[in-house]
Amino acid sequence: MSTAPAAGQAAPSGEQSPAGDKSPLALICGGGSLPLAVADYVQARGRPVLLFPLEGIARPEDYAGRPHTWVRIAMFGAFARVARAAGCKDIVMIGSMVRPSFWQVRFDLTTLMMLPRIAAAFRGGDDHILGSGVRLIEEQGFHVLGAHEVAPEILVPEGALGRAQPSERDRADIALGLDYLHATGTFDVGQAVVVSGKHVQAVEAAEGTDQMLTRIAELRASGRVGTPAGSGVLVKAPKVGQDLRFDMPSIGPLTVEAAARAGLAGIAVVAGSTIIAEPAQLIAAADRANIFVIGTPAVP
Amino acid sequence: MSTAPAAGQAAPSGEQSPAGDKSPLALICGGGSLPLAVADYVQARGRPVLLFPLEGIARPEDYAGRPHTWVRIAMFGAFARVARAAGCKDIVMIGSMVRPSFWQVRFDLTTLMMLPRIAAAFRGGDDHILGSGVRLIEEQGFHVLGAHEVAPEILVPEGALGRAQPSERDRADIALGLDYLHATGTFDVGQAVVVSGKHVQAVEAAEGTDQMLTRIAELRASGRVGTPAGSGVLVKAPKVGQDLRFDMPSIGPLTVEAAARAGLAGIAVVAGSTIIAEPAQLIAAADRANIFVIGTPAVP
Repeated sequence: MSTAPAAGQAAPSGEQSPAGDKSPLALICGGGSLPLAVADYVQARGRPVLLFPLEGIARPEDYAGRPHTWVRIAMFGAFARVARAAGCKDIVMIGSMVRPSFWQVRFDLTTLMMLPRIAAAFRGGDDHILGSGVRLIEEQGFHVLGAHEVAPEILVPEGALGRAQPSERDRADIALGLDYLHATGTFDVGQAVVVSGKHVQAVEAAEGTDQMLTRIAELRASGRVGTPAGSGVLVKAPKVGQDLRFDMPSIGPLTVEAAARAGLAGIAVVAGSTIIAEPAQLIAAADRANIFVIGTPAVP
Repeated sequence: MSTAPAAGQAAPSGEQSPAGDKSPLALICGGGSLPLAVADYVQARGRPVLLFPLEGIARPEDYAGRPHTWVRIAMFGAFARVARAAGCKDIVMIGSMVRPSFWQVRFDLTTLMMLPRIAAAFRGGDDHILGSGVRLIEEQGFHVLGAHEVAPEILVPEGALGRAQPSERDRADIALGLDYLHATGTFDVGQAVVVSGKHVQAVEAAEGTDQMLTRIAELRASGRVGTPAGSGVLVKAPKVGQDLRFDMPSIGPLTVEAAARAGLAGIAVVAGSTIIAEPAQLIAAADRANIFVIGTPAVP
């Protein structure tokens, strides 16, 4: 059931220029406020948006004032029916997402028929999960777009976002971090490191950026990171060959606060390949903590 | 003071074959039982050993039954006087060592004169600290040897150490881990990763192997590592160009217990380039937990 290609009316011109498309956009919403910001940007261009917050991940109070339809991970059939009935062809998935435990997920029938390949994806890395998910959804007749393709406002620009600027020492740490992430980018590992005193102090893998920053704070408190507080940089970059449609590095005010707690001098991300959530709050938090947040040019 | 080259009687032939040298060996002892094992192996070859346990790091009860002289980190002059008076020319440093906080260390006069270069080393990575320390000691007329050069018994041999053997799946994880460590070996970062389901789940940097394994245990408990308990491998390897005289990867029974708590299938290290502490206890712990410990050939 619901396995036939989309029967809704096709988008008028969407294939080539999604930002100018006026067909309704299905927005699958993870946690945080970024999905709502994307919805606002898209609607401001005159394109209707259908919100599909994910149960257990998106916060109900964030969606109270807007029409929306709750969906569940692995309940793809239910989502597909509503989206098709509304004439949606394009899907954007955006917002924070905790990688679910395979055995805690319940599946609907449509999703169950995809299960052998989903299970294979769970045994691979994050890229495998996300990439397989996108392929499976596209086989159902939908078109998966990156949030930045419909709302380019969410990308970090080049240059410093707040008042603080990186020092020469910080720039050396940033360069080393980008080199490291480039060397490991083919391994489908995390996308972030902390570099301090030209030394890689922490590498993110399955634990995520926040937990890595907590570790740095603890190592500093115990004297095991030999550089003083107020030095060191969180460096984030996309993996080599990463599909930026559905798994782009992102930063927000909480990233800035965690970096400040870890005693870092600042944060460096790749301009044009990093999503910024709540830019005004992020800049306010950075200025309050006196740490820099900078978009660097991509490494060639 | 005490800055002239060693005046003690020179070793008869030691430069070329330290294992056959009969001049007294100065053993600077960090934590754990490995220093005592090295002392026993060296003495069994007929070479006298002077023990210099490090205050605050070595455990007093371990040294109660043997002649020894307590020394302090950064009190190099005191050590040098005793070692020279006894005719020691060769030094081995061995045992677990917590990287000290620069500002918590007190210095004697000899060490103080080395301070500008020590401070520079503290701003670099672990390799810089250790390499600089070795160079400074050698400038004082001593010869720093690797523990494995005087006691080759402490090196992990090729093959499985206990009863359990890696599966095909484990061997794929080991290969990926060695590849990752090879790709990052030039960055003076940690020497260990956890790989599970062909995915790098954790990368060691400043936190050390034990804390990385604790992280894996926590990620598994929270369902964020998608592979079942009883899978995954701790892979350790030397850095590219690492000076194996004074900073070789090591494993012991506590490593095995931490790997078992993290639900791993086993541990892989590079044969001939990894020190094993307490081999009998390590093998007993591995067999009890039914996890493999294997020495793999070095990556070319």
